[in-house]
Amino acid sequence: MAYLSLYALQHRGQESSGIVTATGNEFRRHAGMGQVDEVFTRRVLDQLEGDVAIGHVRYSTSGDSNSNNAQPVLLHHHRGPIAVAHNGNLVNAALVRDELESDGSIFQTTSDTETILHLAARAPHADVVDALVEALRHMRGAYSLLAITPGRMIAARDPHGFRPLSIGKVDGSWVVASETCAFDLIGAEFVRDVERGEVVVVDVGGLHSFKPFEAARRASCFFEHVYFARPDSQLFGESVQAVRKRLGQKLWEERPCDVDVVVPVPDSGVFAAHGFATASGVPYDMGLVRNHYIGRTFIEPTQQIRNFGVRIKLNPVREILAGKRIALIDDSIVRGTTSRKIVQLCRDAGAREVHVRISCPPTIGPCRYGIDTPDQDELIASTQSVEEIGRFVNADSLGFLSLEGMLEAARRTRDELCTACWTNQQPVDLPRAESAQLRLFEKSRR
Amino acid sequence: MAYLSLYALQHRGQESSGIVTATGNEFRRHAGMGQVDEVFTRRVLDQLEGDVAIGHVRYSTSGDSNSNNAQPVLLHHHRGPIAVAHNGNLVNAALVRDELESDGSIFQTTSDTETILHLAARAPHADVVDALVEALRHMRGAYSLLAITPGRMIAARDPHGFRPLSIGKVDGSWVVASETCAFDLIGAEFVRDVERGEVVVVDVGGLHSFKPFEAARRASCFFEHVYFARPDSQLFGESVQAVRKRLGQKLWEERPCDVDVVVPVPDSGVFAAHGFATASGVPYDMGLVRNHYIGRTFIEPTQQIRNFGVRIKLNPVREILAGKRIALIDDSIVRGTTSRKIVQLCRDAGAREVHVRISCPPTIGPCRYGIDTPDQDELIASTQSVEEIGRFVNADSLGFLSLEGMLEAARRTRDELCTACWTNQQPVDLPRAESAQLRLFEKSRR
Amino acid sequence: MAYLSLYALQHRGQESSGIVTATGNEFRRHAGMGQVDEVFTRRVLDQLEGDVAIGHVRYSTSGDSNSNNAQPVLLHHHRGPIAVAHNGNLVNAALVRDELESDGSIFQTTSDTETILHLAARAPHADVVDALVEALRHMRGAYSLLAITPGRMIAARDPHGFRPLSIGKVDGSWVVASETCAFDLIGAEFVRDVERGEVVVVDVGGLHSFKPFEAARRASCFFEHVYFARPDSQLFGESVQAVRKRLGQKLWEERPCDVDVVVPVPDSGVFAAHGFATASGVPYDMGLVRNHYIGRTFIEPTQQIRNFGVRIKLNPVREILAGKRIALIDDSIVRGTTSRKIVQLCRDAGAREVHVRISCPPTIGPCRYGIDTPDQDELIASTQSVEEIGRFVNADSLGFLSLEGMLEAARRTRDELCTACWTNQQPVDLPRAESAQLRLFEKSRR
Amino acid sequence: MAYLSLYALQHRGQESSGIVTATGNEFRRHAGMGQVDEVFTRRVLDQLEGDVAIGHVRYSTSGDSNSNNAQPVLLHHHRGPIAVAHNGNLVNAALVRDELESDGSIFQTTSDTETILHLAARAPHADVVDALVEALRHMRGAYSLLAITPGRMIAARDPHGFRPLSIGKVDGSWVVASETCAFDLIGAEFVRDVERGEVVVVDVGGLHSFKPFEAARRASCFFEHVYFARPDSQLFGESVQAVRKRLGQKLWEERPCDVDVVVPVPDSGVFAAHGFATASGVPYDMGLVRNHYIGRTFIEPTQQIRNFGVRIKLNPVREILAGKRIALIDDSIVRGTTSRKIVQLCRDAGAREVHVRISCPPTIGPCRYGIDTPDQDELIASTQSVEEIGRFVNADSLGFLSLEGMLEAARRTRDELCTACWTNQQPVDLPRAESAQLRLFEKSRR
Repeated sequence: MAYLSLYALQHRGQESSGIVTATGNEFRRHAGMGQVDEVFTRRVLDQLEGDVAIGHVRYSTSGDSNSNNAQPVLLHHHRGPIAVAHNGNLVNAALVRDELESDGSIFQTTSDTETILHLAARAPHADVVDALVEALRHMRGAYSLLAITPGRMIAARDPHGFRPLSIGKVDGSWVVASETCAFDLIGAEFVRDVERGEVVVVDVGGLHSFKPFEAARRASCFFEHVYFARPDSQLFGESVQAVRKRLGQKLWEERPCDVDVVVPVPDSGVFAAHGFATASGVPYDMGLVRNHYIGRTFIEPTQQIRNFGVRIKLNPVREILAGKRIALIDDSIVRGTTSRKIVQLCRDAGAREVHVRISCPPTIGPCRYGIDTPDQDELIASTQSVEEIGRFVNADSLGFLSLEGMLEAARRTRDELCTACWTNQQPVDLPRAESAQLRLFEKSRR
Repeated sequence: MAYLSLYALQHRGQESSGIVTATGNEFRRHAGMGQVDEVFTRRVLDQLEGDVAIGHVRYSTSGDSNSNNAQPVLLHHHRGPIAVAHNGNLVNAALVRDELESDGSIFQTTSDTETILHLAARAPHADVVDALVEALRHMRGAYSLLAITPGRMIAARDPHGFRPLSIGKVDGSWVVASETCAFDLIGAEFVRDVERGEVVVVDVGGLHSFKPFEAARRASCFFEHVYFARPDSQLFGESVQAVRKRLGQKLWEERPCDVDVVVPVPDSGVFAAHGFATASGVPYDMGLVRNHYIGRTFIEPTQQIRNFGVRIKLNPVREILAGKRIALIDDSIVRGTTSRKIVQLCRDAGAREVHVRISCPPTIGPCRYGIDTPDQDELIASTQSVEEIGRFVNADSLGFLSLEGMLEAARRTRDELCTACWTNQQPVDLPRAESAQLRLFEKSRR
Repeated sequence: MAYLSLYALQHRGQESSGIVTATGNEFRRHAGMGQVDEVFTRRVLDQLEGDVAIGHVRYSTSGDSNSNNAQPVLLHHHRGPIAVAHNGNLVNAALVRDELESDGSIFQTTSDTETILHLAARAPHADVVDALVEALRHMRGAYSLLAITPGRMIAARDPHGFRPLSIGKVDGSWVVASETCAFDLIGAEFVRDVERGEVVVVDVGGLHSFKPFEAARRASCFFEHVYFARPDSQLFGESVQAVRKRLGQKLWEERPCDVDVVVPVPDSGVFAAHGFATASGVPYDMGLVRNHYIGRTFIEPTQQIRNFGVRIKLNPVREILAGKRIALIDDSIVRGTTSRKIVQLCRDAGAREVHVRISCPPTIGPCRYGIDTPDQDELIASTQSVEEIGRFVNADSLGFLSLEGMLEAARRTRDELCTACWTNQQPVDLPRAESAQLRLFEKSRR
Repeated sequence: MAYLSLYALQHRGQESSGIVTATGNEFRRHAGMGQVDEVFTRRVLDQLEGDVAIGHVRYSTSGDSNSNNAQPVLLHHHRGPIAVAHNGNLVNAALVRDELESDGSIFQTTSDTETILHLAARAPHADVVDALVEALRHMRGAYSLLAITPGRMIAARDPHGFRPLSIGKVDGSWVVASETCAFDLIGAEFVRDVERGEVVVVDVGGLHSFKPFEAARRASCFFEHVYFARPDSQLFGESVQAVRKRLGQKLWEERPCDVDVVVPVPDSGVFAAHGFATASGVPYDMGLVRNHYIGRTFIEPTQQIRNFGVRIKLNPVREILAGKRIALIDDSIVRGTTSRKIVQLCRDAGAREVHVRISCPPTIGPCRYGIDTPDQDELIASTQSVEEIGRFVNADSLGFLSLEGMLEAARRTRDELCTACWTNQQPVDLPRAESAQLRLFEKSRR
C-alpha cells in the first residue's frame, strides 16, 4: 500500500523514491534516484516485508540532489532504529546542525531531516516519541512528518500547518498521507487531517493524539491549491478542483476578455480554464495537447530538460487555434520564459489574439517552506510590472487574479494562509545566527 | 531530431526505442528496452554521430518482447550496411522465413522485419533499392518502412496504405515520420503523405518517387483515428481531434441520453466527449482525473500492470460525480474488464446513473496489420451482445456508434478504410501455406 | 561441470566466457566479457538448466574483441538450434565468408566460427552432423570443435591435429575438453584424445567415431607444451611438466653457465628451471615472486596493462638475488621488452650476473592456428640475432634451446609437430583468393 | 601510486578496495566491493585527483561484509574532512561505541574504525591530530592506521605493534604501507618501520614523529611471517621468505621423515618446503599445481567457494606423485578439512605415503587483533590431539613445528611476539563491560 500510495503522490516529487518497512526491530529500506516505477521492481517489493511502512517521493528543496539524500531516512541510534519521511523545509536546520557538529555529531547526509534525528538522539528523554517531540520543539519552519520506530508510527505537523497531512483508515488500519488522492487509490477512507501542531502516535493500543507545541498562527500553503496538489484531492478541507474552478470564475470576473475560445495550459490550468469558460460562456477547447510521456516542467531539478523546450511537452492543435482569439489560462508565471514560448506556439499555429490569464497573483517571493520556486531574482514578477511581463510573454493582454480575489475564491482570510510567494511576507520569523536551543539539553546531560 | 521525434511518437510504442545513424558507410546503432528517455542518455546521443538517422519506438505485435527485437534493425550484407525501421505487420512473414531458412539463411531475431532484409540480401539485383523493392514485392500485409543505406534514405508504404507515413521538410532537409506531431515538435513543415504503394528515395540529388507495386484497394486503419494516433496529428488527410469530435457528435445523435454531465475517460475519450457535450448541450466536466505518471493501459506488453487496476491511472472526483447522472465517453471496449472497473469507480464516487457511450462500433476481430489487440476470444464483443456487455460493465445504458455512423463522421466509404476490427472482414487475402515466391530468385541465381 | 571445467581452462582465455546448455530442443546461453567467475553468478548458473552443456573461454585471435564474439555461438537454422565452441583458427574463413555473403547470407558476428555454421546451414544434407562435416570439409586450418544439437554432442578435430582435444568419462557420461586438467577438476577419468581428423558423436546410443576427412600430415602445436598448456595436463600423450623439465635439462646441456642460483620466471619457467637446476646441480630458488592477483601477461588483448610494467606481476627477492650470479629461466622471448625489464629487476635487486636461458628456439613467426602471437615485425627474433637480443635484454649471456634439442627433448620428429613459430614454415598451404569450394553446394541445391 | 600499491597488497584483503584522495579541503573517495582491478577503472582513477592519497584493501574481521564498511572511511566533522584506513582490530570498540551512542552519536557503519572518528569528533582538542591521538589513547587492541586531513597525513601504530607499518620514500615524497612489497612495486625506497606507539605526521614541513602513548609490551604478529605477508616483504626487520626457509629447516630437524620427494602446498608452503628440502637433501618438486585464476582460500568471507573444493585451486601432478612417498609441507591447519582434501588428492594421484609437516605449532585460539581465523570451536587443534588430527587428515604421519622451534627459527623471544593463535594467551587485557573512558571528555566539554 505504501508503494501504491507513492504512485498517487508521484506529482509531489520525481527525483527520488523510497520506502522503509518494519517488523518489530527489523527495518528494511530501499530508496533510489528516480520515480516510483523506476526504483521499485517486483523483486525489491517482495523483499520489503513488514507490518508497517512509510514511503517518500522527493524533489530537492534542501540538501543536494543525490541518492544519499533520498528519503525516508533510516538511522540507528541508542534507542534503536528510526525511519523518517519529511515533507517541508526547516528554516533553522543549518544553525542547529552547526551546533550539533561542533558538539561532536557526524552527519551522513546534507538533508535537514537528519538534523531532527541527531537532535532527538541527543535529547535526554527515555522515550523515543518524547525525544522526537523535544527535537521538533527546536525546529522552525514547515514539517509534515511521518516516522516509524519499533512498534509505533508517529505523524507530526508543524504548528503553522504549512503542508497538508491527512489521516485515513483502510481495513481497520490507520494510514497517513500528504494528499487524500493516495487514500482513493488504495481504497482507504479519509478520516480527518492531522491538525497543525498535532502529534499522532499509532501503536497496538490505537491512535493517540498530542498537542505538545505552543500555539502559532495558521499558515496553510495556498500554492498547493493553485498548482501543486492533485485536483482530485481534498486539501485543508476543500476540494482542489472546486477551488481551481472558483479561481477561474473569479479570474473572469476580474479580468474578462473578448475571445472565441478558452484554452487551458494542460494539466494545471485545466480546472481554472473550466471555471473561466463556464463563467464567461465562451467555449472551452483543448487547443494545446500534452505529451504525457514527459515529466512535469516545474519540478525537474536540472535546467537541461526545460531548455529543450516547451514543444516537447505541448503541441498546439492548429485546427482549434487558427484564426481564433484565445484566452490562455495558466496557474502561474515563474520566470516568464515558458509562458512566452507557449504564447509563441499558439501564434505559430495561427491564433489571431492570445490573452493570457493567470489564476493567482504575480509570484514575487521564493518559498522557504518546501516548494521549489527559483531564487527571487529569477522570478520575473519580482522585478517587472504586469505590463512589462505581458510584453515579455508577447500576450495581447495579460491578467493576474488579485490577492483579494484569490482569498475570496479560496473563502479564507489572509491570516489563515501562507501567501509568501505572492506577498513576500513571511508568516514565521526567520532565524538569526545566535541560537541557544541546545542549552537545555546540555543541562540535563549525564 | 530523430531523438526528439521519437518523443513525439512515444505513444505508438513504449516497449523499446532505438536509433541508427549513418555517415557514409559508417553506421551506429543504439537501442534498448524502455521508453526514449530511458534508452537515450546525453552520452549515448553524443556518440550517435551521423548525417542521416532513423528511429523507432516499438510495442510487440510480431516477434517476442525482448531487446533483440528492438528496432531499427541494422545488418551488414554483401552490398554493405542497411538499417530498417518498420511499422506494421507482414502477414506472410513466417512463410517466407521458413523458405529462406530451409535455403540456408540464419536469422538473428524473431521480428518480421528481418525477413525483408534476408529476402533483399538474396535478391539478384545489383542495386540495394532494387533489391529492397524486390523483397517488398513478396511481402503481404502492412508496412510503413524507413531504411537507410550508404548515401540514401528510403521510405516505402504498402499498396493498401494501412499505416500512416508522412513527409516533412525542415531547414531544407527531408524528414519522414509516422505522424505529423513529430514534425510539429522539431519545427518541420508537413509536405504530404507517402502515398500507398509509393517508394521514396532521398539522396544527394533530392527526393525521388517510384510506384513499383501493383495497385491494390485502399485500406487506411481507422482505429488510428479513433484511438491510436495523437489528437494533434494530421492523419490520412484529416485532423485527428476534429474526427474524434465528429465521432462524439454522431454518437450523441445516434445514442442520446438524459444526463447531468458528460465525463470523458481520459485521455483517449476527451475529444469525443467534447463533441458529445457540444452536440447535446450537457456540461462537460473532468470527473475522472488521470495520473500521468503511469503508462498507457492498452499497449503494455505484459498483463501485470493492467491487473493492478484502473485505480492507479484514474481517480474519480467525488465533488463532480456525486449524485449526478453521467455520460461516460470512451473510445472502445476491448475485454470489458477495464470499462467495468471505471463504471464502478464512478458509482463508488456517488454517481447516480452511468451511461456508457463508445465512439466506434463493437470490436469483434483481432488486428493483423499492426495494432496489438488481444486474440478474438478475449474480445467481449465477439461473443456477447451489446445488452450483455452493458450488463457486464454494469452501465445504466450502453451505446456504441454504428459502422454507418462512424463512416459518416469519418467522411469515408467503407472501401477506403480497414474496418477489420469492427467487421472481422480482411481487406487482404491471408496467405496459405503453399508459396512459390522465391522461385523467381532461384532462377536468376548464379 | 561445464562451469567447473572452464575454471580449469581459464588460462586458455580470459577475454570472454560462455556456456550453452540444452534439454531437447530448448537451448539456453549465457556469455559475457570477462573471466568465468565474473560472467557466471550463482543465479545465472541456476537458470542454465539442461542435460548437456558446452562452455568456452576465449581470447581474441580472430574476430574483434567484443561481447558479440563471445562463444559458444548459438544459432537457429532450419534444422533447429545448434551451439558451437571452437578452439583454433581457420585460415580460409574470410574467403568462405565473402562467398556466402555474396550469395545472401547475413552474419551476426565477425568470428570465423559463424562461417562454419552458415556453411552447414547451406549444405544440402538432411542430417545436421552430415551438414556440419560437409562444412568442415571446406575449412582449412586449426579447429578443435565441440557442438551440441538436439539430442547430440559432436566433437571434431582438424586432420592436422593442431590443437588438443581429449575425451573423458565421469559417472558414466562422456566429457570432452581441451586439456585433461579439466577432467582432474571434475573427477573425470581421461579416456583418450580425439584423434586428428576424427569426428565423435555422442547420443543416447553412446559414443560413435567417424573419420570423414582426407588424411593430412600431423602438426601438433608444440608451443602448447612449451608455454600455453597447464603443467598438470596430459597433452598429445605426454605430461606437460615432464616435457618442460626435459626441455630444461636439454637447455643446460646445450647452454650451460657458471652461476650460484637457478631462478625461474614464474609461472611458465618453473618446470624448465627445475630441470635446468637438477641437470646442473646448481641450487634452485624463487628469486622472483609473482603477484597472483594479476592476469597473465601474454594473452591480454590490449596493450595497456602490459606497459604498466612487469613490476606489478613480479617482485625480486633481494635476499636471494643480492651478490649472486643467476641463471634466469623463461619459456620464450617475444618482443624482448618484458625480458629486458625482468633482467633489470634482478640487477636492481643486486644480482651480480644475469644469464638468460630460454627453453625453446627464438620465436620468428606469427601463429596462424590459434595462438595470439604478435605480428612478425614485433617479434624481436625475426630481425635480431641472438647476440643482439642478448644486448637488448642486457643479459650477461643469452642462450636459446636449439630446434634439434627441442625435438629431442620432445621425443618427436619435426614432421609430427607444428613448429611454425620457430621456423616460419607452415604445415598447411595458406589459401589463395580464388576458391571454388561452394560450387558443390550450388549443384545439389533444390 | 596508491592504486599500484593496493595491487601489491591485494593478498591482505580481497573483499573491498578503496582510495581517498585530497587536495586542500577537497576530498574524493571511491570504494567498492571487490578486488582493486574490479573497483578501479581508468575513468574512476582519472577522477580521483589529489596531492595526497590513502588506499585500503579489506577483508572482514570486524563489521559486516558489505560495501558500507569498505575503507577508507571518509567523514566530515566540525574540524573538516578526515579519511582513515585502518588495519587491525580494536578490542574495546563495541564498548566505546555503546557509550558514544547513548550520548547521542549516530553511526553510519558497523566497522570499528568509525568509533575512532566519533571519539575524535567529541574530543575537546582544537587540533585534529591532538583529537585523533586523544581518541586512540582510549582504544585497545591492534591498529596500524593511516589518516589524511587537509594538509596532513597521519600514520599511527598501536603501542604493542601488532600489525606492520613501514615508511618509504619515492621522488622526495613520503609513503607509508603495510608491507614493503608495495614500495618495491612503485620504486620507493624502504626507510624504516613506524615504531610501535609512534605517531608520524607528514605536512609541508616534512615528517614529524611523536610518542604520545604509554609504553606497552611488544607483540608483533608472527602469523604474518608464517602465512599472511608476502614472501618478498621485509617485516618487523626480517625477510619473510628467509624466515619461512628457516622454519622449514627447523621443521626437518624436529620432525624428519623418510620420503622420496618434498611437495609444497602452494603458494604459502613453498619457502618452508624449500628449507625442508634443503635441510633434508630430499628432492623438491611441484607435485601440486595451483590454478591462479581463483582467489585465496583462507580469506574469502563466505563459506560457499571453500566447500566447492580444494580441487579448483590445486591439481596434483600424477607423474610426480605416483608411487612416491611424499612430505607435504603447509603453513597451518585451521579446520583440518582442507588438509584432508589435499592429502586425498595426493593419494588419488598415486602417492604411496603422505607425511604432512606444518611450519608452525597447532592453531588453538582465534585472533582478536586482525587475522580472520575462525571461532575457536572450529579450530581442529583446539579440541583434538596431533595424533587425532593426523588421523582426520588421513596422513601417514603428521608433524607440527614446536613453539620453541618456531621462536628459535624466528630468532625472537616469546615476549616480543604475539603467539596467541598457538598459545591462546593474550598479550593484552581484554576489556570488561564497565568503562569510564569518556569521563575525561565530559569534564572538558563546553
